[in-house]
Amino acid sequence: MVKYLSQQEAINIDQELFNSFSVDQLMELAGLSCAQAIYSVYNKGKVLVITGPGNNGGDGFVCARHLKHFGFTPTIVNPKRSKNELMQRLIIQTQQLGIEQLELMPKDLSNFNLIVDAIFGFSFKPPIREHFTQIIKQLAEQKDLPIFSIDIPSGWDVEKGPPEDETPTIMPDSLMSLTAPKLCAQYFKGKHHFIGGRFLPPKISEKLNLPEYEGSSQFIKI
Amino acid sequence: MVKYLSQQEAINIDQELFNSFSVDQLMELAGLSCAQAIYSVYNKGKVLVITGPGNNGGDGFVCARHLKHFGFTPTIVNPKRSKNELMQRLIIQTQQLGIEQLELMPKDLSNFNLIVDAIFGFSFKPPIREHFTQIIKQLAEQKDLPIFSIDIPSGWDVEKGPPEDETPTIMPDSLMSLTAPKLCAQYFKGKHHFIGGRFLPPKISEKLNLPEYEGSSQFIKI
Repeated sequence: MVKYLSQQEAINIDQELFNSFSVDQLMELAGLSCAQAIYSVYNKGKVLVITGPGNNGGDGFVCARHLKHFGFTPTIVNPKRSKNELMQRLIIQTQQLGIEQLELMPKDLSNFNLIVDAIFGFSFKPPIREHFTQIIKQLAEQKDLPIFSIDIPSGWDVEKGPPEDETPTIMPDSLMSLTAPKLCAQYFKGKHHFIGGRFLPPKISEKLNLPEYEGSSQFIKI
Repeated sequence: MVKYLSQQEAINIDQELFNSFSVDQLMELAGLSCAQAIYSVYNKGKVLVITGPGNNGGDGFVCARHLKHFGFTPTIVNPKRSKNELMQRLIIQTQQLGIEQLELMPKDLSNFNLIVDAIFGFSFKPPIREHFTQIIKQLAEQKDLPIFSIDIPSGWDVEKGPPEDETPTIMPDSLMSLTAPKLCAQYFKGKHHFIGGRFLPPKISEKLNLPEYEGSSQFIKI
């Protein structure tokens, strides 16, 4: 069975990858794998992509860009603008494609068909910063729209899963585990669990006991 | 009909893209589109990927990396090692996948099933540098293996096509036109003509009258 990673194991793999890959390369493949997975299970429509300030947010931007090329209509929510140069370029790339960008969450989500949660990834450590507490509450309380979470469902502990107190908790319809599932993925009860990130050297992927990708696809459904 | 680009038009589009994209991002998508196109028309087997010192060579490295993930067995020929940092990383990435790297062309090509020509792209200006004259002659003289050329068939003039004198000339079986075909593609008589590079903002792609990509594919067959 595929190995589920602790936070430290995920951080170590990432650091090992960064010895030879640039963030740009890995993020491009990660975001593309999300967009292709979304294309495989959801109908084309309006997608709200909510981005955090770190690399998970970057994956969301790349995903939004590819979704637009695939015929979806993404809108990006970017509540906390990062000064990082790559993030600045991702903003311009998506603006050039005519993708709408918002700073605040729309109050009414009924106009959308799908939410992409690109707020926090495997390096998330609580507490949730102020900007995002309200957003996660809003996502947790709405029940109409399916959520596609990139890497981990935002607000969850990377290892322990959904918070055990009364905090409102996202339960995504889809989870894209990048590289390999994190321990929290054991608590995922949605419909579609994907693995993406077809770039691991065999030295790493063999240790993780990953299933085989098919054909030229950038994601696996497990 | 799709617009065929002059060398200067191709250079201008590239410069416009580099205002917001990094070379890493564009190269990743370009190389992936080549690998996916190869997967779509050739059987898995041994592929000799011949790389030049510029970005076309970089596309070849990325293509080789993805081909390896797709189950092909690539070998890379890298006759003129570039000192560029990105190229250095591409070498490490492909080495980590166990892809064999050669400095010299193998004399006997009968062991391979396909050749990927990633020597020169749209910025090529004659004369061909010494390192590559012999290689192109060898590729032109062999008739057994299909050649997949990235962007332009190497040795061709970007606008005027195959040389008109007695110089041995490659005629690839497949041509992957990145972004849009260059003028020389009019002289292409092989079986498969692809377009790759699904990243153009509509402002550019509308001017080029490009055909539509299908689904979540990274290449079009025209």
